Amino acid sequence: MQETIPHWLSKQADLAPDKTAIEIEDGYCLTFKELEYKSKGFARKLARLKITKGTHVGILSTNEIPMIIAIHALSYLGAVGVLLNTRLTPEEINFQLKDAEVSIVLTADHLKENSKGIKAETIHSFSEIDELEEKEVRLCTELNLAETFTIIYTSGTTSFPKGVIHTYGNHWWSAVGSALNLGIHSDDKWLMPLPLFHVSGLSTLIKSVMYGMPIYLLEKFNERTVHHAIMNKGITIVSVVTVMVQRLMSFLGDKKYPESLRCLLLGGGPAPKPLLEKAAERNIPVFQSYGMTETASQIVTLSPDNALKKIGSAGKALFPAQVKIMEPGEDSIGEIHVKGPMVTAGYFKNEEANQQAFNSGWLATGDLGYLDEAGFLYVSDRRKDLIISGGENIYPSEIESVLSGMEQIKEAGVTSKADETWGQVPVAFIVKNSEVTEDEIWTFARKRLAKYKLPKEIHFIDHLPRNASNKLIRSRLKL
Amino acid sequence: MQETIPHWLSKQADLAPDKTAIEIEDGYCLTFKELEYKSKGFARKLARLKITKGTHVGILSTNEIPMIIAIHALSYLGAVGVLLNTRLTPEEINFQLKDAEVSIVLTADHLKENSKGIKAETIHSFSEIDELEEKEVRLCTELNLAETFTIIYTSGTTSFPKGVIHTYGNHWWSAVGSALNLGIHSDDKWLMPLPLFHVSGLSTLIKSVMYGMPIYLLEKFNERTVHHAIMNKGITIVSVVTVMVQRLMSFLGDKKYPESLRCLLLGGGPAPKPLLEKAAERNIPVFQSYGMTETASQIVTLSPDNALKKIGSAGKALFPAQVKIMEPGEDSIGEIHVKGPMVTAGYFKNEEANQQAFNSGWLATGDLGYLDEAGFLYVSDRRKDLIISGGENIYPSEIESVLSGMEQIKEAGVTSKADETWGQVPVAFIVKNSEVTEDEIWTFARKRLAKYKLPKEIHFIDHLPRNASNKLIRSRLKL
Repeated sequence: MQETIPHWLSKQADLAPDKTAIEIEDGYCLTFKELEYKSKGFARKLARLKITKGTHVGILSTNEIPMIIAIHALSYLGAVGVLLNTRLTPEEINFQLKDAEVSIVLTADHLKENSKGIKAETIHSFSEIDELEEKEVRLCTELNLAETFTIIYTSGTTSFPKGVIHTYGNHWWSAVGSALNLGIHSDDKWLMPLPLFHVSGLSTLIKSVMYGMPIYLLEKFNERTVHHAIMNKGITIVSVVTVMVQRLMSFLGDKKYPESLRCLLLGGGPAPKPLLEKAAERNIPVFQSYGMTETASQIVTLSPDNALKKIGSAGKALFPAQVKIMEPGEDSIGEIHVKGPMVTAGYFKNEEANQQAFNSGWLATGDLGYLDEAGFLYVSDRRKDLIISGGENIYPSEIESVLSGMEQIKEAGVTSKADETWGQVPVAFIVKNSEVTEDEIWTFARKRLAKYKLPKEIHFIDHLPRNASNKLIRSRLKL
Repeated sequence: MQETIPHWLSKQADLAPDKTAIEIEDGYCLTFKELEYKSKGFARKLARLKITKGTHVGILSTNEIPMIIAIHALSYLGAVGVLLNTRLTPEEINFQLKDAEVSIVLTADHLKENSKGIKAETIHSFSEIDELEEKEVRLCTELNLAETFTIIYTSGTTSFPKGVIHTYGNHWWSAVGSALNLGIHSDDKWLMPLPLFHVSGLSTLIKSVMYGMPIYLLEKFNERTVHHAIMNKGITIVSVVTVMVQRLMSFLGDKKYPESLRCLLLGGGPAPKPLLEKAAERNIPVFQSYGMTETASQIVTLSPDNALKKIGSAGKALFPAQVKIMEPGEDSIGEIHVKGPMVTAGYFKNEEANQQAFNSGWLATGDLGYLDEAGFLYVSDRRKDLIISGGENIYPSEIESVLSGMEQIKEAGVTSKADETWGQVPVAFIVKNSEVTEDEIWTFARKRLAKYKLPKEIHFIDHLPRNASNKLIRSRLKL
């Protein structure tokens, strides 16, 4: 079934021409009809650069409307968008451009100057494209779900980054799976504070065109702005990562969010349980989820019905998806495997990685976790972050979760240190909320953690190292 | 993309085990967990009859829970259900059984006695199967969307009936398309008064398992029962055909439906405009739709936003679908063609019919209609019902629509009669509400219809000939 559907943006522009597709902070709105018109126009301008079916085009931009137009424009040409993380160094970007066979890069206007170290045949800012004359070309009226739409590189904190292929079908099925979990309400408005060059952000654009739902787009996360939007802009769903929930809750103080806010969709790794409990106590609808670039965003999500009953769990696999644990240990923990039509068609030209990752349609995620008796997934850690100490498995996130439950601690990051006796031992990095001593922390931790899990060292730092999507990078916790 | 998804009933039983899947009139409810358990058990019993992957099994039943269990049971075995219309004569059924290569037929208990004229190797009532011992067999845990799930014969009022293949994917995409139009609300409850052996009924079972939504199942339509359910049972959506809307509105009188009723989904052919206007005036949310067995239920539907603005239109193609008019005449009317992943994989072993019906993925529906400037579909008539009178095209449904707007007329059916001068002329059949004469009808019609469209004869009858899904069969309007 190489299923073909009408071009999704054109379809929504036909079904709901005057509905808002994108709204930004200053109140500027773009309807689906306008977005279609601009995207098609941009596509005809890109055609001047000989961008055509199958051309790989780099996009280097922070969240802004021209970036969205550029992404949709590529789909009208059948071209492939390679979305570049703006926080990368030119060398890192050059690796991705070469690996993904990109010769043309489009940048946000404000990033054009910074792009000097980037090696591409041509680099154009969005405004420069806008100045071109439109070329008469046949634009796609249909999308074949088997074809590639985007490539996004995995952060790859160990080996070289790998280019994750997302077909139109991967994005389609991801949005359908999410809809079957969260429902589709005609008054939905999704706030997006995460970068669109990550799949968490990008996937929301597809949801927008499929559901006919406005996206409230932020250039970046800022608790004041998000708070204000939730309070005043009719936001029903917000994509967040842990640190954003923390900041939002501090900012909220004793106030309450409007009832219309029905979901803070939490991705980007396991959240500390104390935080989730605090949110639950205050009726803040945080739904933990689990996903990665390879799964075109969330693939496991805690449903509204279970959000309060199963705190700490990432939930169950979305309707079209499956999850299983391979080779579980005595503690039931093993490597998480997932399967479903939203799972990447594979890594771009990387047969070795594909062979390692896929087995009969199942993707080995590299993450560790377990399923409880009712089949709910609990994510323990990245396998590479696992600490093995005297033969015992130690999950950094468990220690982080405990430590961040201490009033005086704002955030905690745990990594390992080589140890002659134990092989590895855990070491904690603490960002303080208020004054606290190492001894106080140890006293707190001793009551809550087995002895072998106690951090052997405690370091105070100003902030934790995070990547562009605010995920903690434990490998950068340096002693 | 031979997409594979987890078995949909098992999946929903895992996600929402205790949620109601089916509710029937006497208040009896079956949860998804129970439905899964019973369906799997029934599958293991069917395995005793050597029913296995690819076996074609006839199902002859009116709406009842054992029928639903039997249908799901077949999916656990990978067998194909051939759904038989209980109103057919034994000869008609035998044609379908032979054509569909069915050797085993399952019947409702109360139909077993009547099944004597049916030629099949074995005929078993649901209760007889229930008495069998379960056999240890491997049940399907996944569904491949490219595989066949059901075959339903088209009513075929002209040529021999054709077996319409529905893959799991056809059903899946139909449900997704509907969800993207109507939304998915966690409190939805869908009332089904249409037979499950038609695709309109059958498709709702799939929506139920995919959305995790209860079906309120009626054995058959009865305005008192439906009214009562809408008023007291939290029904949010009802599938209806025109005559049901008429009867419900009479029964409703001056009362109002609860606000929670969000959609009367109207299928089964174009509805008279006066009826739709009357419903709109009274805030009854009737959404006209257009579909057929070949499209796995509705493929074009008027969205909630346009239900009142575009009365008389069937709406726009569902999100994954497309509609176009081929060879339109001067009045813009031509044959309706549709395309999309919910459109049948083809007619079973009927190459001739497939070649006639399909052209580059588009299905020629045999229906006539036009698109207005904004792209909304208006269905005129079945092509075979078109009356050509002195070179002018006359659409019976237009005349029916006008006549049924007359207070004293309950229903009207229009067909053609051979005429020496004009070739064909229209003839009307009237079911009265209250006393009315031919002259009064002509006076009414003359003000509203061009002269050539005026029925040349008016006949009063007690009721219109309708098929099992309550569609008017014009060919049976006999003089």
